[in-house]
Order: sequence, then structure tokens, then C-alpha cells
Amino acid sequence: MALAMSVAQSNAFLDREFPQIAGQVRVETSDEERLIARLIVGEAHLRPGGTISGPAMFALADVAIYLAILARIGEVALAVTTNASVDFMRKPEAGRDLIAECRLLKLGRVLAVGEVMIRSEGVEGIVARCSMTYSIPPKAP
Amino acid sequence: MALAMSVAQSNAFLDREFPQIAGQVRVETSDEERLIARLIVGEAHLRPGGTISGPAMFALADVAIYLAILARIGEVALAVTTNASVDFMRKPEAGRDLIAECRLLKLGRVLAVGEVMIRSEGVEGIVARCSMTYSIPPKAP
Amino acid sequence: MALAMSVAQSNAFLDREFPQIAGQVRVETSDEERLIARLIVGEAHLRPGGTISGPAMFALADVAIYLAILARIGEVALAVTTNASVDFMRKPEAGRDLIAECRLLKLGRVLAVGEVMIRSEGVEGIVARCSMTYSIPPKAP
Amino acid sequence: MALAMSVAQSNAFLDREFPQIAGQVRVETSDEERLIARLIVGEAHLRPGGTISGPAMFALADVAIYLAILARIGEVALAVTTNASVDFMRKPEAGRDLIAECRLLKLGRVLAVGEVMIRSEGVEGIVARCSMTYSIPPKAP
Repeated sequence: MALAMSVAQSNAFLDREFPQIAGQVRVETSDEERLIARLIVGEAHLRPGGTISGPAMFALADVAIYLAILARIGEVALAVTTNASVDFMRKPEAGRDLIAECRLLKLGRVLAVGEVMIRSEGVEGIVARCSMTYSIPPKAP
Repeated sequence: MALAMSVAQSNAFLDREFPQIAGQVRVETSDEERLIARLIVGEAHLRPGGTISGPAMFALADVAIYLAILARIGEVALAVTTNASVDFMRKPEAGRDLIAECRLLKLGRVLAVGEVMIRSEGVEGIVARCSMTYSIPPKAP
Repeated sequence: MALAMSVAQSNAFLDREFPQIAGQVRVETSDEERLIARLIVGEAHLRPGGTISGPAMFALADVAIYLAILARIGEVALAVTTNASVDFMRKPEAGRDLIAECRLLKLGRVLAVGEVMIRSEGVEGIVARCSMTYSIPPKAP
Repeated sequence: MALAMSVAQSNAFLDREFPQIAGQVRVETSDEERLIARLIVGEAHLRPGGTISGPAMFALADVAIYLAILARIGEVALAVTTNASVDFMRKPEAGRDLIAECRLLKLGRVLAVGEVMIRSEGVEGIVARCSMTYSIPPKAP
């Protein structure tokens, strides 16, 4: 199955539709198996003690799954998250970007489910696991 | 049980420890039953179509639960979220702040669990429900 | 809004459609606000140490939310759970039934979300919290 | 790292400690990477329409993660589930056993997190994904 959006198209979509985070998140890989996105960690993502905030990781997972869905079905601007669960498992390493690897577990007509594993770049243990369900709006007739 | 932090102390804590979001989130009520926090919705929270982003709601829930825990046990800067689940149920109303109402369901020695219901101010239906588990570090001896 | 199924109808539905659990779960209250169901705790629900198993609590929550949805929309035999999250917070008291109190947080055309708080009968603290999303099939034309 | 429990030991543990489900769940593989367990599907697991019930899948995931933890740390009878999230994604195939493949994402001193992918035997798509957190009691001194 050919992808509907390339890496370059995904990043252009981020620039255009999500200007608030476009400078912070970049898609690096997108193929039939997975989408990999990077969070370029900066001051805005940090919490006391130098750790990366939970909401910053949630935002990274959210955008990675959204883009993985769009890469399959094309730009459906109104797909919305209906459910998310996150396990925060390890403290991210200070001074390293986060790498999110997303797989779609289901891509149905109405619901899609994606899962993301987040790691600190170059470090083995999983920092956070997140799965989200997206509701896909019906196509206009 | 007397609270360890008042509303004013909770907001002062936000100003000091979470400067990135202190101007956006304010605690309005904190008593033995619940903590209520407001997200002052601005451009940074919006998504295409004028809706409020999921990560903005996640961040609001996260800080509300964290502050509800601290209001009981005092400033334990290193309590960390280990798990979160969110149900996004309704589109928030455009142009209205979000009001998060948090209750602690469990406050154990090691783990605390809080739940947040998020509504658009002045609107009845629940926009999002979120529960989170926090791991509380052992007290220094 | 009048309910589509009374307590007696809900229990008759359980007897007919869920014979495996009908003798273990009984609906006690069903009104516009909430549905309350009881798990009659028996040997089959216990784990080593005399505690009630997580799966038994999951099954109780599942049926309570399902019946709360049917009480509103009538018998839609094919509604299916798409997502569930559970927080297990306290050990249930030995020798006491479990009481599940369910509220519907959303009842949409396509998705419904319910939440259940489970307590040991006569005991205050919440044993488990569970939310589930059900997908509702389209009506036959 | 050598495992503390072999496949045979895991099944013997099931027979001894979980007699209610021992005849229904069998461990088939257990190594450093993963534990695979089978649900021998029978009448007790079915729902109207011939599908396998959500609680039956939850129970399978629960025992697979529990045994994967014990395979690493030895018999710690009092480890308890504190949190679970499940995505139910496809209807299981009628007349086929379920195969649960569990990986531990974290094995800490206090908390362990495992994830399970459930498939119908011989069928490719994932039926359900489940992650659970277990709280590990401190060792007696």
C-alpha cells in the first residue's frame, strides 16, 4: 500500500497546520511499518529537576499517531483523539531529544488505533508507551 | 484533615516551579473534597478548526492532579506521573476557558490516584475525563 | 428521558443473554443518573490471599456499563467495548459483595463512554475505577 | 539473565495457585524476550454472537503479564495489578484459541509494566492490546 504522505509532506503539513509545535517536532521516517518522529527538546518541555514533562511526551505521541494515520488515508483534518493511555516508565535522559516510534495497530473505517514507544535518543530503555484511538469522520459523499 | 497548601500557595507554587504554564493555569478552589483549576485558553492551546488541543487538556489535568496531591502532603517536588488515561468526549466550546475539577481517589504511601473532569466554562457536558497515577517518593529519613 | 429498560428488564436480559454471569451479577438500581450492580462474590472470583480477582472486577464494570447504555437506547445486542482503563486502588474486603456504580459520561450516536466506581459493600474507599468506551452499531435502515 | 521460572514451572504455578483458570490458560513459551500464553477458548468465554468476551481477554492478559513478571523475579505471590488499559480492536475469529504475547516494558524495584498483544491463532491482525502495571511488594528483610 503506497503512503498518502511522504516524510517531506508530513513535515510540510506540520508547518502549515501545527505552527505551535512544528519547530519542535520533526518526522524522520515514514513507511508502511512505522512513523518515527523526534522531539527537539528545549526549555519549554522541561520540568523541575531537568526532566521532560509528561504533557510534552503526550503531545509528541499525539502528533506521531495523527501523522501516521494521515500518511495512510491522506489529509483528514478532522480526525480527533477519543482516548489515550500512557505509561511513563523511565526518566528521560537530560540533554537528549526524544524519539517516538509509532505503529498503527488498527486502521478501520471509523476508528484507528496507534501505539508509540518513546525513547531518549541513543538510550535503550523505553521512557513512555502511549496508545491512542482516533475517530475518523465519514467522507463527504 | 487540614490542607498543606492553600489556593494562594498552590498558585505561588505554580509561578515558581512551572513558569511555562503558570500564566495559563490558575487554581480557583482547593478543599478536602476537590481542587478546581482553570485553563485560560489562548492561541497556544488551539488546533485547526478552533478546538483546544488534547495535549493542552492533558497538561491541565496533570497539573490539577499534581497540585491536589501536594495540597494534601505538602511540596514533594519529585512525585512523578506513572500512568494516565484520558477520554476525550466532546469538542470544547470555542472562546471559553476550560474548568478542571479534580478529586483524589486514593492517597497511599507510595501511589496516589486522581481523576479530573474537564468542562467548558458554563457548559454542562464533560469535555474530557482523565485519571492519573502518581508515584510518591519515600521521605528522606 | 424515560429509560428503555427497567431494573427487572435489565436482570431478565442478563438471565437470557449472559447466562454465564447472570447468577453472579444483579442490577439493583437504574435511573437517569446511574446504574448500580452487585457482584455476588463467590469462590470463582477469588485469588490467592482471599482477594477478588481483577478480571472479576473488570467483568462487573463491563456489564454495568453495557446495561447502563442499553437502559438508554434499548437492546442493541452488538454494542462492543473498544477501550477500557482500570485503576485498582484498594484491596476489596474479604467476604463482602462488590457494588458497582455506573454513570454514563457520554452517549453519542457512535460512541458511548461510561465510568464505574467499585466499592466493597458497606465500606467507604473506592476499590477500583473503570471507564470504558462502547462502539454503537448504526441502526438498520 | 536466567529466568526464575520455566514454562513447566509457570504452568505448575497456574495449576496450584489459579485452579479456576488453569485448565483454560497455558504458557507455551517463556524466554528473556517474551512470554506466550494460550487461551483454550470454551463456552465460558463466549458472548452473544459467538465472540469472545472482553473479560476473558482481560483475564488472559492479566495472567500472562503476572507470569512474565514471576518468570523474572520468582514467586512473589502478592504482586498486584494497579492499572490496566485495553484496546479491543478486532472481533476474534470464532472457533480459534487466543494467543497472548507479552513483553515486559519495565521491571523496576517497585513497579513493573507489561504489554500484551492478543491474536486469534493463525490470524494476523491484533485482536486486543493491553498494558498493565503491577506493584511489587518489598522483600521481607
